[in-house]
Amino acid sequence: MDSMWMPFLLTLLLSAAAADSSLFEANGVPIVRNISEINQDNYGRLGLSHITIAGSVMHGFKEIEVWLQTFAPGARTPIHRHSCEEIFVVLKGSGTLYLASDSHKNYPGSPQQFPIFTNTTFHIPINDAHQVWNTNEHEDLQFLVIISRPPIKVFIYEDWYMPHTAAKLKFPYYWDELSYGQTAPVKDEL
Amino acid sequence: MDSMWMPFLLTLLLSAAAADSSLFEANGVPIVRNISEINQDNYGRLGLSHITIAGSVMHGFKEIEVWLQTFAPGARTPIHRHSCEEIFVVLKGSGTLYLASDSHKNYPGSPQQFPIFTNTTFHIPINDAHQVWNTNEHEDLQFLVIISRPPIKVFIYEDWYMPHTAAKLKFPYYWDELSYGQTAPVKDEL
Repeated sequence: MDSMWMPFLLTLLLSAAAADSSLFEANGVPIVRNISEINQDNYGRLGLSHITIAGSVMHGFKEIEVWLQTFAPGARTPIHRHSCEEIFVVLKGSGTLYLASDSHKNYPGSPQQFPIFTNTTFHIPINDAHQVWNTNEHEDLQFLVIISRPPIKVFIYEDWYMPHTAAKLKFPYYWDELSYGQTAPVKDEL
Repeated sequence: MDSMWMPFLLTLLLSAAAADSSLFEANGVPIVRNISEINQDNYGRLGLSHITIAGSVMHGFKEIEVWLQTFAPGARTPIHRHSCEEIFVVLKGSGTLYLASDSHKNYPGSPQQFPIFTNTTFHIPINDAHQVWNTNEHEDLQFLVIISRPPIKVFIYEDWYMPHTAAKLKFPYYWDELSYGQTAPVKDEL
């Protein structure tokens, strides 16, 4: 085939694609998406399955982000804090929320323990250090996580007695990292 | 019993209550709540069950709000728009999203139809008029709704050809109304 036809064929192909473009938002994100077809990954964290259902970096949301996370028995988040609102809806399994509510000390201190289980909701007060742990040996723990002010900026503690000022900023976070690639994002209210 | 003991007994009772207060945030909202114990209501809308899992007016969240809604066969939202981000996660059933994406006209106009079903997620672009309808005659449609910038301010259309400027503001919205009571809330960026 002569290469002179290529621009025409390309136009035809693009027109065919555009026929469906009304199903998408201006930023290219489909309005309706099948969650089972969204990529899941453990992002290097043992026992984790993370799906970004609606994301800032991936999908262009500016005010809210929604994740579906599954923790195998024994899997847990790091001890961490962040300055966004965060709400969990537990879909399956059970586990423990560790929460250090006294933010007036120099370090989180010994956390309170809260049992969490299917069909509970829990929230993390802004900037309180916390950790979610699947302490059920027999069952996966699955929940939806909703955060505000994405993309998330996380300060990670090695233990509950590490000073707040020593907690290490992880930004971009694991699941946003690949989308940013090697380019550092613009800094905002970190 | 002599009334002189009352202050002492009250102190004792309050101390007993305070022993559990560490399970609550400063605003009195428990950190972990059982969704099946949260009040559900139809707020005068036929075929609706609405649960505010995490709310601005009810629970003090400032940036995100999470609802669990169930629509009986045939039940639907009004045609409406709002200036917040909104993300749905469909837990059960199927139905139709009607969405008028062309916000450059004077009225929403004929909407596009999107099939929605269990395990899909969909979002509403800011200020696009939309309607969610359980068009499945045999099954309830249940989803989680996540919005930003609560409490929600909703502009309601009688039909898809009503001018944007004629849409009627409903604020406070049905499930926030009772919490506000008769007192008009402070106006913000309505």
